[in-house]
Amino acid sequence: MRERGRGRVIVDVYDDGTSSRRPDQLATEEPLEIRLRHGADVTTAAVTMRTPGADFELAAGFLTGEGVVAHPDDVRRISYCTDRDVDGAQRYNIVNVDLALPPRTALERLERHFTMTSACGVCGKATLDALEQGALRPLPPGPDVDADVLLRLPGAMREAQGGFEVTGGLHAAALFDADGALIAVREDVGRHNALDKLVGWALLAGRTPLHGHIVLVSGRSSFELAQKAVAAGVPILCSVSAPSSLAVDLAERFGLTLVGFLRDRRFNVYSGGQRVRVGGLGR
Amino acid sequence: MRERGRGRVIVDVYDDGTSSRRPDQLATEEPLEIRLRHGADVTTAAVTMRTPGADFELAAGFLTGEGVVAHPDDVRRISYCTDRDVDGAQRYNIVNVDLALPPRTALERLERHFTMTSACGVCGKATLDALEQGALRPLPPGPDVDADVLLRLPGAMREAQGGFEVTGGLHAAALFDADGALIAVREDVGRHNALDKLVGWALLAGRTPLHGHIVLVSGRSSFELAQKAVAAGVPILCSVSAPSSLAVDLAERFGLTLVGFLRDRRFNVYSGGQRVRVGGLGR
Repeated sequence: MRERGRGRVIVDVYDDGTSSRRPDQLATEEPLEIRLRHGADVTTAAVTMRTPGADFELAAGFLTGEGVVAHPDDVRRISYCTDRDVDGAQRYNIVNVDLALPPRTALERLERHFTMTSACGVCGKATLDALEQGALRPLPPGPDVDADVLLRLPGAMREAQGGFEVTGGLHAAALFDADGALIAVREDVGRHNALDKLVGWALLAGRTPLHGHIVLVSGRSSFELAQKAVAAGVPILCSVSAPSSLAVDLAERFGLTLVGFLRDRRFNVYSGGQRVRVGGLGR
Repeated sequence: MRERGRGRVIVDVYDDGTSSRRPDQLATEEPLEIRLRHGADVTTAAVTMRTPGADFELAAGFLTGEGVVAHPDDVRRISYCTDRDVDGAQRYNIVNVDLALPPRTALERLERHFTMTSACGVCGKATLDALEQGALRPLPPGPDVDADVLLRLPGAMREAQGGFEVTGGLHAAALFDADGALIAVREDVGRHNALDKLVGWALLAGRTPLHGHIVLVSGRSSFELAQKAVAAGVPILCSVSAPSSLAVDLAERFGLTLVGFLRDRRFNVYSGGQRVRVGGLGR
């Protein structure tokens, strides 16, 4: 039952034989439209459901993952919509990204990505071939990290997370250096959005490509998350749950170290194990 | 490290100070293209990443959620691609849905859905307004279910699930009657796909609208899952984790009972509590 205010609700709680009412806090979900602009040309790149906040980072990270931008200079300016015909609250659900390239160029890349996947028949191998012919490049070697460093990451991310404790409904993505020091964490109702926000923050801060870094995501590692990591130059992607088969295929193709089930003092390495130093274990 | 065969891998396992290699089973993820056909007209409705299997159900369920089909008679036939220019393995990643309506009509609905969300400014309320003006209808009253019935659902779904035990990477959606008897369960790497497969099965079996039924999904209840439930006529949607704010808004607008955190002998009711009988608790 909704009350006034963002995500505040009164819920009926049923707990082993008793029922009561109490306030609860929901993870907020609202649509965000990402518009690309170059001079007077405006086009919609995507409409995504997201948790409001870090919207400029989300837009920048999404476009990085799609290969539309790769450098902070590719983005001139990001701003909320100020069209007169859009009313107040809705303006914060539309961001305009002013590109250094004309949007036609950028959109051609987006369209090519989709068209190639589809027109040449769809299968995992064809999808990876299309990425290779597109903007995605293999990762350089390094860094080497101690297994012990990886084991500490979930605890560090949990400590830094605000939202999950309260709502239980937010996914997170965290950026670490090769020694396991936390650099940034972002949250969202969507797993993809959490990683987009993190990558967008890094791009806008001039920190991409993220060579020499580690990213940890809550949930599973899908094909799309692995693609976003490689596009941002992240060499080591860890998740607390399982990867999919196509995520492992992509990791092998582009030299990504893919770590799964990182929890309870253990993990599995599915690809790129040369970056993980076993010597560090059990010290 | 990939071996031959679907999803079979050898992984390096690091467990609190020791390292070993062992075989593991991954959840398979491959793209699926859903094509709509009417006579000689063919158009692509969607390309989605999914776990192969139950592909016809996935296509039928996806189209139900988008309002393109609502009755088994709306679908003449679903088949894998047999184009000569598509090679063997890829044919199983393309399904053709032969519609009773011309695809132009169906696609106009898809396009209207997107355009309305975007053109009228995007916000949660505008999104719900657009659904109301589209094909989505409020749910009728009933059924009434005992709280005890809900408490038994997660155990029943887990027992019926094959994949999660093995890979740890599959989401599930399960259909129950109002007494908590399990009718069907479907799994996929994607939460949306698992529900689409379940709904598509019901549509093709002539069981929609699913009034009088309960659906349980693993993970969280997002806006999109709530929308798919209402489109299929499901009056009670349960999840083992949290709903988003917009999922609760949609549930209230369309009369959906939304149950969250259904696990460990407890749950929260976020909307539509009149369908949950407290008298049944603690018997």
